[in-house]
Amino acid sequence: MTHNMPRVYNFSAGPAMIPAEVLECAASEMTDYKGTGMSVMEMSHRSKAYVELFGEVERKLCKLMNIPGTHKVLFLQGGATLQFASVPMNLMGGRKSADYAITGFFSNKAYAEGQKYGGARVALTTKDSDYTIIPLQSAFGVDPEAAFFHYCHNNTIFGTRWPYTPDTGNVPLACDMSSSILSEPVDVSKFGVIYAGAQKNMGPAGLTVVIVRRDLTGNAMPHTPSVMDYAAQIQNDSMINTPATYGIYLLGLVLDWVEKNGGLASMEKINRAKAKLLYDLIDDSNLYRSGIAVNSRSMMNVTFNLGSARLDDDFVKQAANRGLTTLKGHRATGGIRASIYNAMPVEGVEKLASFMQGFDINNR
Amino acid sequence: MTHNMPRVYNFSAGPAMIPAEVLECAASEMTDYKGTGMSVMEMSHRSKAYVELFGEVERKLCKLMNIPGTHKVLFLQGGATLQFASVPMNLMGGRKSADYAITGFFSNKAYAEGQKYGGARVALTTKDSDYTIIPLQSAFGVDPEAAFFHYCHNNTIFGTRWPYTPDTGNVPLACDMSSSILSEPVDVSKFGVIYAGAQKNMGPAGLTVVIVRRDLTGNAMPHTPSVMDYAAQIQNDSMINTPATYGIYLLGLVLDWVEKNGGLASMEKINRAKAKLLYDLIDDSNLYRSGIAVNSRSMMNVTFNLGSARLDDDFVKQAANRGLTTLKGHRATGGIRASIYNAMPVEGVEKLASFMQGFDINNR
Repeated sequence: MTHNMPRVYNFSAGPAMIPAEVLECAASEMTDYKGTGMSVMEMSHRSKAYVELFGEVERKLCKLMNIPGTHKVLFLQGGATLQFASVPMNLMGGRKSADYAITGFFSNKAYAEGQKYGGARVALTTKDSDYTIIPLQSAFGVDPEAAFFHYCHNNTIFGTRWPYTPDTGNVPLACDMSSSILSEPVDVSKFGVIYAGAQKNMGPAGLTVVIVRRDLTGNAMPHTPSVMDYAAQIQNDSMINTPATYGIYLLGLVLDWVEKNGGLASMEKINRAKAKLLYDLIDDSNLYRSGIAVNSRSMMNVTFNLGSARLDDDFVKQAANRGLTTLKGHRATGGIRASIYNAMPVEGVEKLASFMQGFDINNR
Repeated sequence: MTHNMPRVYNFSAGPAMIPAEVLECAASEMTDYKGTGMSVMEMSHRSKAYVELFGEVERKLCKLMNIPGTHKVLFLQGGATLQFASVPMNLMGGRKSADYAITGFFSNKAYAEGQKYGGARVALTTKDSDYTIIPLQSAFGVDPEAAFFHYCHNNTIFGTRWPYTPDTGNVPLACDMSSSILSEPVDVSKFGVIYAGAQKNMGPAGLTVVIVRRDLTGNAMPHTPSVMDYAAQIQNDSMINTPATYGIYLLGLVLDWVEKNGGLASMEKINRAKAKLLYDLIDDSNLYRSGIAVNSRSMMNVTFNLGSARLDDDFVKQAANRGLTTLKGHRATGGIRASIYNAMPVEGVEKLASFMQGFDINNR
């Protein structure tokens, strides 16, 4: 296929880059998927061809993430924000309260939503540090009677990442992995529920992946909408109604790409190297400043600033002119944010690093 | 672009055919949307390029459907099935009960879901007729105190369509138009809320369009998830969280196609002609049988049977061999179902009619 424009390196926090070969495959199959004479988008979700594709995607995800039989993958809709309600609606199980770790914007949203469905206790908050740190396990307590302990593994806006999996004893972990899923290996067996919007590391917005421990389901609150009831979705293999069929197909192509590139261990190695390139440059520079505690730094979202809003703006504009786009930080933080998910090539990060070095020299 | 296989005529009830030129445009823009150097799928939903596209799609829909300023278009997720819960959660407004017309499978599902959120009264049911008829207005009453009157405009499985818009006085109409939206003009001003999954006449599964009268919003129940709260979504222009960005883009392409082909009045004319071709053939044949009351027949889903499961099966198989696919009726009804949404070309229906005539002769 011909490109009108060279592809840019898109540092968007999400929706974000998708591997070029995934997009090219999707384009080539758009009007005819494997000789069926139709697009995947046009297929009945009950058709033989689609049900096979769907099963393959689930098997690929289970293999890549080493998901045990105790857990079930669901392909849902509504984004992580709908899961902020689904998690308590499904997992409160008659308990009085759930524990929330507030380490950024979305974990705070999850907590606010959780309050609608029962007691929601703040187990820890890093607000006083402006969300620049993830505390040690020893710095907070967990209510042993809590229905679950909710945290957000990677905080997209502030640029932090939990460097460890919290040990909460018998209290199930509920984890928003929207911006880190597939970026490194995870021991799924440790989690009660993992959920993620697809639009960062998995594919297009509109698909939400949920991985839930089967034995925690079946006690949804009476006012839970059917499509949000995990047990009902498990029973119907995510097809209470038509799922986001095309998004699931694209996830399958992304999973093939991850597998071809060495799986999650390899993703982590590459992602660590990409992040190190930027963090080393920031640490060595007098211009660039990172406020994030070193051991809490995100591998996916590298945040920094240049000490003045004018310099930040210049940086973003000049970078865009060089095909390095969407580097502006979130309005809550200002500054710069380079989101470097799996699909951001090493070359893109190298180009950014090279631009940063030049900008540093020119602004001394 | 090259096709590996000729495109088939896909009579799926949904997900269903999408105009070939829409798919071809999407394929050609897959890696670079209008010189941005990225796919629409990769764009931040907050980016200038995407926000413009999003606004354009809303404006096009408002123009095509002549949506008045009293109503707001929302681009949501979760399908019609999530709306079965959203409608009562948003519109009960402290009232004791809502009225439901049960004329098929999905209106029954809506009623079952509605019972979770307050009183749900069966205003009418056509179960006794096996859902083969839509009753006259004079055949049922509406509770003047009902929060809303819910009905499903076109019953995909049974193949019926409301040939009129019910007059319910001051009781707002809540209408599932999943399988008929954009197929004919509608007086939106008469409705409290119209909702539709995109996967029949609008685009890919995973996008849900809601058109709601603004003055009915703002009284959502306390346990309504944020993304399901119409007032909150109106305030955030459907972006409480990341919407189904790529689905919305595809809807825009479909709307361009509808406009280019004469708008909704023209769609209705073509759809009537397509349906007439099949119904006339059925009525003239001794082999094909339609159980649907003539004035209740669907323009979108033409259901019939051949009097024996063996003949039905032969029909489906032989048709598929001729590139006329997915004609098997729903398991609830058996028989044959030809779904002929906007994107099914007249040629596809003509080919089906021609096949039906031949099959009739061969099986006399």
